[in-house]
Amino acid sequence: MTNSWADLAGRLGVDLLLDVESTPGARGRRAALATALRSAITDGRLTPGRALPPYRSLAADLHMARGTVAGVYQELIAEGWLVARVGSATRVADVARQVSTPRVRPEPPPEPAHDFCLGQPQSALFPRSDWIRSTRRVLTDAPHATFGVGDPQGHLATRRALAGYLARVRGVRTDEHHIVLTTAVSQSLELLSRCVFGDTIAVESHGLPFHREVIERFDTRVEPIPIDADGLDVDRLAASSMTEVVVTPSHQFPTGHALDPRRRAKLVDWARDHGGVIVEDDYDGELRYDRDPVGAVQGLAPDDVVYLGSASKSLSPAVRIGWMVVPDRLLADVLRAKGPRESTASILDQMVLADLIESGAYDRHVRRSRSHYRARRDVLSEIMRARGIEVTGISAGLHAVLSVPAVAEPEVLRAAAAQGFVVAGLDGFRHPDAAPLPSGGIVVGFSTPPEHRFQADVTALADLVATALANASITSTVAAKSMHLSVTDCP
Amino acid sequence: MTNSWADLAGRLGVDLLLDVESTPGARGRRAALATALRSAITDGRLTPGRALPPYRSLAADLHMARGTVAGVYQELIAEGWLVARVGSATRVADVARQVSTPRVRPEPPPEPAHDFCLGQPQSALFPRSDWIRSTRRVLTDAPHATFGVGDPQGHLATRRALAGYLARVRGVRTDEHHIVLTTAVSQSLELLSRCVFGDTIAVESHGLPFHREVIERFDTRVEPIPIDADGLDVDRLAASSMTEVVVTPSHQFPTGHALDPRRRAKLVDWARDHGGVIVEDDYDGELRYDRDPVGAVQGLAPDDVVYLGSASKSLSPAVRIGWMVVPDRLLADVLRAKGPRESTASILDQMVLADLIESGAYDRHVRRSRSHYRARRDVLSEIMRARGIEVTGISAGLHAVLSVPAVAEPEVLRAAAAQGFVVAGLDGFRHPDAAPLPSGGIVVGFSTPPEHRFQADVTALADLVATALANASITSTVAAKSMHLSVTDCP
Repeated sequence: MTNSWADLAGRLGVDLLLDVESTPGARGRRAALATALRSAITDGRLTPGRALPPYRSLAADLHMARGTVAGVYQELIAEGWLVARVGSATRVADVARQVSTPRVRPEPPPEPAHDFCLGQPQSALFPRSDWIRSTRRVLTDAPHATFGVGDPQGHLATRRALAGYLARVRGVRTDEHHIVLTTAVSQSLELLSRCVFGDTIAVESHGLPFHREVIERFDTRVEPIPIDADGLDVDRLAASSMTEVVVTPSHQFPTGHALDPRRRAKLVDWARDHGGVIVEDDYDGELRYDRDPVGAVQGLAPDDVVYLGSASKSLSPAVRIGWMVVPDRLLADVLRAKGPRESTASILDQMVLADLIESGAYDRHVRRSRSHYRARRDVLSEIMRARGIEVTGISAGLHAVLSVPAVAEPEVLRAAAAQGFVVAGLDGFRHPDAAPLPSGGIVVGFSTPPEHRFQADVTALADLVATALANASITSTVAAKSMHLSVTDCP
Repeated sequence: MTNSWADLAGRLGVDLLLDVESTPGARGRRAALATALRSAITDGRLTPGRALPPYRSLAADLHMARGTVAGVYQELIAEGWLVARVGSATRVADVARQVSTPRVRPEPPPEPAHDFCLGQPQSALFPRSDWIRSTRRVLTDAPHATFGVGDPQGHLATRRALAGYLARVRGVRTDEHHIVLTTAVSQSLELLSRCVFGDTIAVESHGLPFHREVIERFDTRVEPIPIDADGLDVDRLAASSMTEVVVTPSHQFPTGHALDPRRRAKLVDWARDHGGVIVEDDYDGELRYDRDPVGAVQGLAPDDVVYLGSASKSLSPAVRIGWMVVPDRLLADVLRAKGPRESTASILDQMVLADLIESGAYDRHVRRSRSHYRARRDVLSEIMRARGIEVTGISAGLHAVLSVPAVAEPEVLRAAAAQGFVVAGLDGFRHPDAAPLPSGGIVVGFSTPPEHRFQADVTALADLVATALANASITSTVAAKSMHLSVTDCP
């Protein structure tokens, strides 16, 4: 046979697929088998500890005499390739592999000394038992069809559960027909870029560079609108000719301010008057700590708002479930862009989320998380205030902003990076065409440090910032800037 | 307060967020609460059956007298909005919602009478207990950091397990550093389009339209190379100026032929001589039924092949795990395109897959699936042969091709569609610039019908094809064509 690839083990045991030249004659085949096994072990196709099929099965499958195959096994055992133990399968020995060492081997970045990375929940809070319990429940009860091709709009039960949940918790007005499940806010933005956004879309002057890049990938220009302590300057938006905007009204990212109620009303009027589309990124809407929670703008104008959220902050970024609440007039376009079958989102995870919500476990987890983060926020505020450092943007979410003079921001970041702190600066989130904010700020993710180190890490950070501000030697701005940009990409 | 959004339940119970005008005075607030609850029920923010928090808790949170809140509850119970049961929470009654009916409500397509849809496994085979067991194991044992931001290259343990598995089963030569996890073959193609593919890439003349679209979305032109019963015409590829090709060498999709061994060698030589890149879509490589399995081309030329696979056919398309095996020289580009954090693939599912492979459950499942599909394939072949219908492309995978004259293909598809059969025609997979194949074919996914109906469905299909061929009235070709195209998009 001309094809030198042959399956010597067929469907027995481990599906050995070996590279052999099959030669005629019993002796030739015996040698070929030995050579093939040796080379499969050498280059790692057969890994150490792997059980080989019983020689009888292999012999039957190869139409070889049992004695021949047994002989090959014994030969390789003798040579040290295989190991036999009484009463157990013959296994591959622990032979050094000769696979070529990869030229590119991405090294994990060194563990930071003090990690105040943004945008991820405290991983110790993940509700492991709830997830296991819900997995067992949904996988036991689900009809077979669930394991077929997924609905690209998202698992129906999940959309139903989310519609109820978002109504209760965020004042969102919708139903399962207007929810589209994705894997993240960024994927939702990508979908909108492909089917809804026009040539240019307005964004807040400061926001996630990654989100701007996702939009630009599909040839939509993003144009910055200034923000201040009351959030997006809606008058400036209205004065522009743009009719679409991406905004974080509940908790501006990164400044942490809520959009002023009058501006909320004005934003909704603007959309109504201009046929505009408000894309509301409610990235941490569930994690509010004080009275007067800020409901979603979507609840005020369900026909003009595309509402985006995800489980990345409430559960874990290892669970890739995002959601969009889409107005009727845009729904057909979004579904068309999503395509005829689900190709990225795990339907199994969606099923588990539905059960978590319906069983009340999700609410319990969010409440538990909220009180955990509220306590951390209080510790952080207290320690910072004791050092005379003002903390803002802390009525919600997983990050706080330490006020520093704009000129001092690079200096603080430089000192932080030098001492192994992962923090970011407000200016690192600025749209390149936008004016810098009048004040600086150090953006601190307070969910990341492990619990046992939290107080010490925050104290160290407070000391660092206080010292850097006292020194206030505003020199090496350029070096600090570049450091700063890499820091915002954490992790 | 100017903000009319207030959280009336705070962090108690269900996080009621109600739209109220808070008015001064106990009577005013009582009325406001009642109105807010009514409107939340009317517009569906509070869904039927939802438990309200105990009136004491709500009262405490609102700084209202208990009697006032109890009075509001009683008022709404009297009005029929709420339902009280002794010993249970007060709940929202089953009130008709007044949410505006969505104008777009995507109706699920009617259930086909005989579903021979392509590209999905038999959903009854999904290894539910194994998945539950592995979920429990990995979620119990995983370090906390697992629930942080995921490695965009994919969970390390999963890459390790896959490297061993692909070596054993497909003869792939790689290690965990050269595997990149995605959500599907289509996402792998999308990544390659963004970072590897040049202006033009060669594809087989017949293939998944969806895959061509994914590539074209990133401004790479796809140019067809003819195929025949020996697979891709490698001489034609070599004669072109293209240096990249996407190919299905183990089981051409849709014809089902394997790439001839001489052509495999020639393809590898071509890549080596031209610095070319072979993208090997090994979409159903594990599901081979006969002797002489065809190993992956990657094993012959690890430096020139990007190998693509996924769990969609082996497990379920509801599990979104795809993998790429990337040559060293392209790895940095692919990882750059993947970005600094994982934003689509579920790390939890990746962890479960690693455990399934390491525990041997995945191998067992694949073996079980293979013998199930092999039996189905044998039944199909036998029934078709008894009607004089030739069946090809059946040494692997989840679909077969029924040979029909090219001129008869539209007629058979028309008859099939009219009688509720979901099947596709070979010509529906043709690149628009490619010449039609000399023979026609009906592409039949034999994994989809439920087990109890399989024999009957296949018999009905055989009757239909035999009858249509006998009639062979090649008339309404145009109508059939359009029907045919929609059918290939199934489901």
